Amino acid sequence: MTDPLIPDLPDIDDPQLAARLQSLIDHKIKPLGALGRLEALAVRLGLILGTEAPRLERPQMLVCAGDHGLAARGVSAYPQEVTAQMVLNFLAGGAAVSVLARQHGLALTVVDCGIARELPAQPGLLQRRIGPGTADMLAGPAMTRAQCDAAIANGREIVRALPGNALLPGEMGIGNTSSASLLLARLAGQDIDACTGIGTGLDDAGRARKRDVLREVLARHARATAPLDALAAFGGFEIATLVGAVLQAAQERRVIVVDGFIASAAVLVAHALQPRVVQRCVAAHGSAEPGHAPMLRALGLAPLLDLDLRLGEGSGAALAWPLLESACRILREMASFESAGVSTRG
Amino acid sequence: MTDPLIPDLPDIDDPQLAARLQSLIDHKIKPLGALGRLEALAVRLGLILGTEAPRLERPQMLVCAGDHGLAARGVSAYPQEVTAQMVLNFLAGGAAVSVLARQHGLALTVVDCGIARELPAQPGLLQRRIGPGTADMLAGPAMTRAQCDAAIANGREIVRALPGNALLPGEMGIGNTSSASLLLARLAGQDIDACTGIGTGLDDAGRARKRDVLREVLARHARATAPLDALAAFGGFEIATLVGAVLQAAQERRVIVVDGFIASAAVLVAHALQPRVVQRCVAAHGSAEPGHAPMLRALGLAPLLDLDLRLGEGSGAALAWPLLESACRILREMASFESAGVSTRG
Repeated sequence: MTDPLIPDLPDIDDPQLAARLQSLIDHKIKPLGALGRLEALAVRLGLILGTEAPRLERPQMLVCAGDHGLAARGVSAYPQEVTAQMVLNFLAGGAAVSVLARQHGLALTVVDCGIARELPAQPGLLQRRIGPGTADMLAGPAMTRAQCDAAIANGREIVRALPGNALLPGEMGIGNTSSASLLLARLAGQDIDACTGIGTGLDDAGRARKRDVLREVLARHARATAPLDALAAFGGFEIATLVGAVLQAAQERRVIVVDGFIASAAVLVAHALQPRVVQRCVAAHGSAEPGHAPMLRALGLAPLLDLDLRLGEGSGAALAWPLLESACRILREMASFESAGVSTRG
Repeated sequence: MTDPLIPDLPDIDDPQLAARLQSLIDHKIKPLGALGRLEALAVRLGLILGTEAPRLERPQMLVCAGDHGLAARGVSAYPQEVTAQMVLNFLAGGAAVSVLARQHGLALTVVDCGIARELPAQPGLLQRRIGPGTADMLAGPAMTRAQCDAAIANGREIVRALPGNALLPGEMGIGNTSSASLLLARLAGQDIDACTGIGTGLDDAGRARKRDVLREVLARHARATAPLDALAAFGGFEIATLVGAVLQAAQERRVIVVDGFIASAAVLVAHALQPRVVQRCVAAHGSAEPGHAPMLRALGLAPLLDLDLRLGEGSGAALAWPLLESACRILREMASFESAGVSTRG
């Protein structure tokens, strides 16, 4: 990779460290394997942070928001102005992600990556606007390549300035399940109809219309097969900013807690650019959106929670967060059979 | 019910309160149903605590320990002395449940309900010993009815003295998956072979032996069909104490966070005595023990987590705890469309 936009990512899956982590877990005072998937999570966190005693520090929720030209085609159950309204609620503390971030002590940064209506400057809001919403991708690409590159660079710069060793990306953008479905169809070779869900709550007629529109968009951009071409074609500004954020976090060996369908789409693009991104990822939950399960499979990730969430905002990442903390504490704080004087198997 | 051992439980599923809770959730600023199973959890917690603004207070982990005469028949991968050793580790802070309780601010009480070896008195340990382990249930009932009743009374008295409005029952007892499998087979009419798993980690030969033993035990106590007769026949002291704890918590309308296979077996017995117990229950996780899924189905409960845990101690209940907190906070802290000035569906 020579493009300075896309960082090189070293292989962090050190088999010797993995073996030491597994051995530590196997010697904890519990039957072998009895902590189930928490044990694999502990190994993963140890590998990402490069230590036998991982400690999560100053976790950062990063919620990127943007609007979508395609929203005018009736692909969402909610009007476009909800994007701006919800951003104001993230900042006011009344949204789901605000509540959950407060519960778990997660710092919350909200980024205007290109909402249709420009919001007044205020604490907690970063303004990294690429434009007043993306273009209508039925008429042309949602973004120019220059806009796409600028959004990725923004994401990298934002994460570079954040403290801590864990990133929880979230998003808001009326219409952005359409972008995620299109990216999944194009980058993972999935059938677009199967990738298209109800988003914020379309009825059957709405979903049929959304499928028609997305099929047409996909055909219109048949040549946009390279990852960044697909990202530019399908948008949105918030997804491209998250692609940059994920790449930067991966380069810095931060733990990336992957939320739902749209946040995962950003990881899918980042993975297409740099496959080792997923070494730094933990999948928080499996969304009710039908495209999320094949997307996580394409990434080789298995979700921790399966609660039929379909909210976005990073809410599922926040809900899964205590499990990551638990996995680290088990490594750091649980006694071993030897240290605790407990008899081993008969 | 006139037996003073078993409390009456009023019906707490008030349909008017349920409708008000559902309406509150439906007006929160998120698409309808977008918080998935967290929404049903919020309704359940509101119903148990009898309020539209549920608040979990001073949650109590109660880990009951006891030994099993059947352990001498080779039904466990670990020697019996591990029960006492693990109890000492719960108190010393190095066990999984100690680590997780500390993480989430859960008070931890450990009860010796009848460990083979009597432990010295120490802070955090309640001594409510019925005997030095149960009797060999291949030779006769594990407990007399008088012992069984005494253990249930102990459980009720212990919970009565605990503060707070939430109980997280856990357990420790080498051999106690055998009791849980037998209780499931008898009280829910399940095939004993299908209910019998590897416990702490039997190999194939060990599991085959365990199945042979449990089939013989079940046949020997063919007449023990009433819930308390089955409990006395199959033990153990810690399960009977938990039955009392669960009944008392249910009577006081505490939230009962149901851990894995053995804690669920105590709930199964309590449910057989007083079906409304489950109105007060939340299932924390689905265990890797093969009997746990049919047991939860028999109780009509769906687990929040599915992480292949098979540790017991209450560890799964502790891991699920933050989700209960989240559900309450969503009810109490999330803004409504009206209060937040967010547009509703187009």
